[in-house]
Amino acid sequence: MADSAEPPKLRRSIGARRNPATEAAILAAARDLIAERGYAGFSIEEVARRAGAGKPTIYRWWPTKADLFLTIYRAEKASTIVIPGRGDLVLDLTDYTLALWRFWRTNPAGVAFRALVAEAQADAQALVLLRDRFLPERRVPMRALLTAAAERGEISPDDIDRRVTLWIAFIWYRLLTATLAEDRDEVAAYMRLIVGRIEPR
Amino acid sequence: MADSAEPPKLRRSIGARRNPATEAAILAAARDLIAERGYAGFSIEEVARRAGAGKPTIYRWWPTKADLFLTIYRAEKASTIVIPGRGDLVLDLTDYTLALWRFWRTNPAGVAFRALVAEAQADAQALVLLRDRFLPERRVPMRALLTAAAERGEISPDDIDRRVTLWIAFIWYRLLTATLAEDRDEVAAYMRLIVGRIEPR
Repeated sequence: MADSAEPPKLRRSIGARRNPATEAAILAAARDLIAERGYAGFSIEEVARRAGAGKPTIYRWWPTKADLFLTIYRAEKASTIVIPGRGDLVLDLTDYTLALWRFWRTNPAGVAFRALVAEAQADAQALVLLRDRFLPERRVPMRALLTAAAERGEISPDDIDRRVTLWIAFIWYRLLTATLAEDRDEVAAYMRLIVGRIEPR
Repeated sequence: MADSAEPPKLRRSIGARRNPATEAAILAAARDLIAERGYAGFSIEEVARRAGAGKPTIYRWWPTKADLFLTIYRAEKASTIVIPGRGDLVLDLTDYTLALWRFWRTNPAGVAFRALVAEAQADAQALVLLRDRFLPERRVPMRALLTAAAERGEISPDDIDRRVTLWIAFIWYRLLTATLAEDRDEVAAYMRLIVGRIEPR
């Protein structure tokens, strides 16, 4: 959109603009490296080597290892799970929570997410990325899910943002204590408490 | 208690029994080292050197660095904050949450707790210690607080264990996102959601 005012000849320049083939090679190398070595063995240096790209190029597009990782994580998650919308909040949240936990247990990028949370405890850049960029975007679809449920009368319209926080806190707690079990009834019970479902009279 | 059947002469033996002076020297050295260098700079080796104790002695009493750290953490916390019992659950939980966050922000052992949670993401022994030994003992007084409130009619007696989990999940989430603010009204609002307070009619 913003490109429309730009002279056509600039379209072929390199520099800040990403070269799609290079970008694809970097992302493929990053994805493979995470699958092979997890977050601990993931480095910009090794991605550059495998992709045949310059380290400065990668650092220009992804300032830190955590940035590049989150690009892979988002893509893997988006291609693996969707936020359900069956029209029953507790059911939808239970399905989504279980699907996300399965992703965290089985997808290499999902498994590595736990290590990023750990890294953010010692690395201020990773913390800012996780807290101020990743989590706010993460909240948007969850807020929409709860808002729709409030409009249907399933929950109160108050405190929706806090309830989204409690949901994230709960799923992280289970991640960080390595207790991502497939206990559907138990998860549903937590979802009811978190959203404060209004019981039909 | 189990000692009553033991022959008196064994009471003066060394071995598995701890020597109080050595134990005190180890704990003092551990406490000072955490204050000086945080969790990253904390090691059994350095504690042994400072305390003039043998490493095997320390390892016999505390099998890992995380064990020794948690002994210090518990003692520091117990001497800094108490679980309040003013008889109003939301007020008590709000006070306690804020006091705990202050401890996590300002006491060296409290600050280091965040690093232990991070370590547990890569170290199975630290995870087991945190999840299966530390957290269950941590839940006991919180469960008692909620049970007393249920008996007073402030909350439902159902789901008390799950609500304790949600409380721990919430306080950890704020720890791990470095958002331990002194926002009393906001914390009280979360406490109301977590415990599901029954509003007076």
